[in-house]
Amino acid sequence: MEKIFIHEVGMRDGLQMESVTVSLETKIRWIENLAKSGIDIIQLGSFVNPVKMPQMADTDDLFNYFKSENKPENVILSGLVLNEKGMERGLECGVDMFCLGVSASETHSKKNTGMSVKDATQRIIAIAKQIMNTGKKLQVSVQSAFGCGFEGNIPEEKVFEIVKKYLNAGIKNISLADTAGHANPQKVERMFSTIKEFDISTELTCHFHNTYGMGMANCISAMKTGVKYFETAFGGLGGCPFTKLAAGNVCTEDFVHMLQNMGQRNDIDISEIIGVTNYARGYFAKELPGHVYKSGPIKH
Amino acid sequence: MEKIFIHEVGMRDGLQMESVTVSLETKIRWIENLAKSGIDIIQLGSFVNPVKMPQMADTDDLFNYFKSENKPENVILSGLVLNEKGMERGLECGVDMFCLGVSASETHSKKNTGMSVKDATQRIIAIAKQIMNTGKKLQVSVQSAFGCGFEGNIPEEKVFEIVKKYLNAGIKNISLADTAGHANPQKVERMFSTIKEFDISTELTCHFHNTYGMGMANCISAMKTGVKYFETAFGGLGGCPFTKLAAGNVCTEDFVHMLQNMGQRNDIDISEIIGVTNYARGYFAKELPGHVYKSGPIKH
Repeated sequence: MEKIFIHEVGMRDGLQMESVTVSLETKIRWIENLAKSGIDIIQLGSFVNPVKMPQMADTDDLFNYFKSENKPENVILSGLVLNEKGMERGLECGVDMFCLGVSASETHSKKNTGMSVKDATQRIIAIAKQIMNTGKKLQVSVQSAFGCGFEGNIPEEKVFEIVKKYLNAGIKNISLADTAGHANPQKVERMFSTIKEFDISTELTCHFHNTYGMGMANCISAMKTGVKYFETAFGGLGGCPFTKLAAGNVCTEDFVHMLQNMGQRNDIDISEIIGVTNYARGYFAKELPGHVYKSGPIKH
Repeated sequence: MEKIFIHEVGMRDGLQMESVTVSLETKIRWIENLAKSGIDIIQLGSFVNPVKMPQMADTDDLFNYFKSENKPENVILSGLVLNEKGMERGLECGVDMFCLGVSASETHSKKNTGMSVKDATQRIIAIAKQIMNTGKKLQVSVQSAFGCGFEGNIPEEKVFEIVKKYLNAGIKNISLADTAGHANPQKVERMFSTIKEFDISTELTCHFHNTYGMGMANCISAMKTGVKYFETAFGGLGGCPFTKLAAGNVCTEDFVHMLQNMGQRNDIDISEIIGVTNYARGYFAKELPGHVYKSGPIKH
């Protein structure tokens, strides 16, 4: 089994769904603890309109804080960017890795960006090229890649068309995001295998939501197909606010726990992640979808 | 992909964990609706001491009710038997399929049956042989096959020894039960593959608990290894009362939903199962662990 890398997206995909806005101080503490766990990439937030999404209003402040001597070692800090303005903000405050994306669903794309899939793809690729020129890390995704809460089935060919445009633009790090939770293990295997056939050097990332309980099974399927990067959220927080039926991401500590039980990533200190989940559970005053923060890891 | 069969164990492994005892009338209604869904096997209950487990006290009455003209078509009714007395009760009230088992964990075996693993295996095989002589269907399991809440790791060799004894006794339908939820996809693949190597004609069954969130991933792994029978519980109810950290079974409707999304078992009417889960959720006045009863199935 190849080494699997964890991209923690709870600070963005998790917190954007909560009605309670987390204070800057608390965010800093959670990020520090997540970094201490030894996971690989942490997404600090998204560069969106702070009026539309107040939970993400301090994303620039967070990056600025971690730019200086506070920068945690051995962790890549990523930020989600939706447009040119976001990119500029990200470049100014020291984002290590830019994450961009296009939805394969026309309805979702319209609701999320006001643009058709075709226009959004063109725009995102143009931004991606600018980012590549700066030498910063880049990951570009296809959202609603496995189905859409509004439209139902999304033809796989439509997803592959976007992926081919990315590849033609020289983008190597490509993520398929299952915004609506429609992915199943068979489809995951088929789609990632097809993309690998387009270009064997593609670095694949997956992002699954657990809406129908298939998240962890999809991760196993992706892993078997050679996907190495996994976007997960502590506690299983999350969900896109512009999708129809939002549900949590695959839970980071549950996923890491599964990896560790399969003999992988024993370098990660899972207790640090569980600590953040317990903190968040208190902060939001509710149970979170994750399992391992309730049970504790298996004792062997 | 080979045809997968569903063995619904919620009426036994689900209800035995609830402090509220479900009335006979309600049980009958749930069983009728589960049978209407088109699943393959329904476990009505266990033949245990009614004083020790009042939730299962009406198991004989249930079988007697369904023995007559009330018998649902095309469904096998199974019952769990722990000893000779249970077998006799089961034979009297018309059980179609007898389920027996031994724990691979000495501690769990002692707590559950008061016997060592060796003694319990000998006793269960003796009962199994009697049942085979009656021409009734039979399934024999190894509980705590993937680890134990008390002992932690259970050597795989210990599980295989029990399995070999079953095979030597002519038992072909063998289940590995993950009582404590310790199984992971890699271990599942390794252990079921090994058993298939002992005897290719073995009919394999799996039974996973979702304690650490790995249940559905383990099912996918088992399916890939040729396991065809899956024990699941509606709503994700369940847990063994004699294990350390009890947590629900893999949820029937979530599992069937995943199968159907992979093009299998579209003969099953998932809405009937979801109906029972919703009824049970009201009956127990609490949310259940399943996903699909909350979200509804994916609309394509």
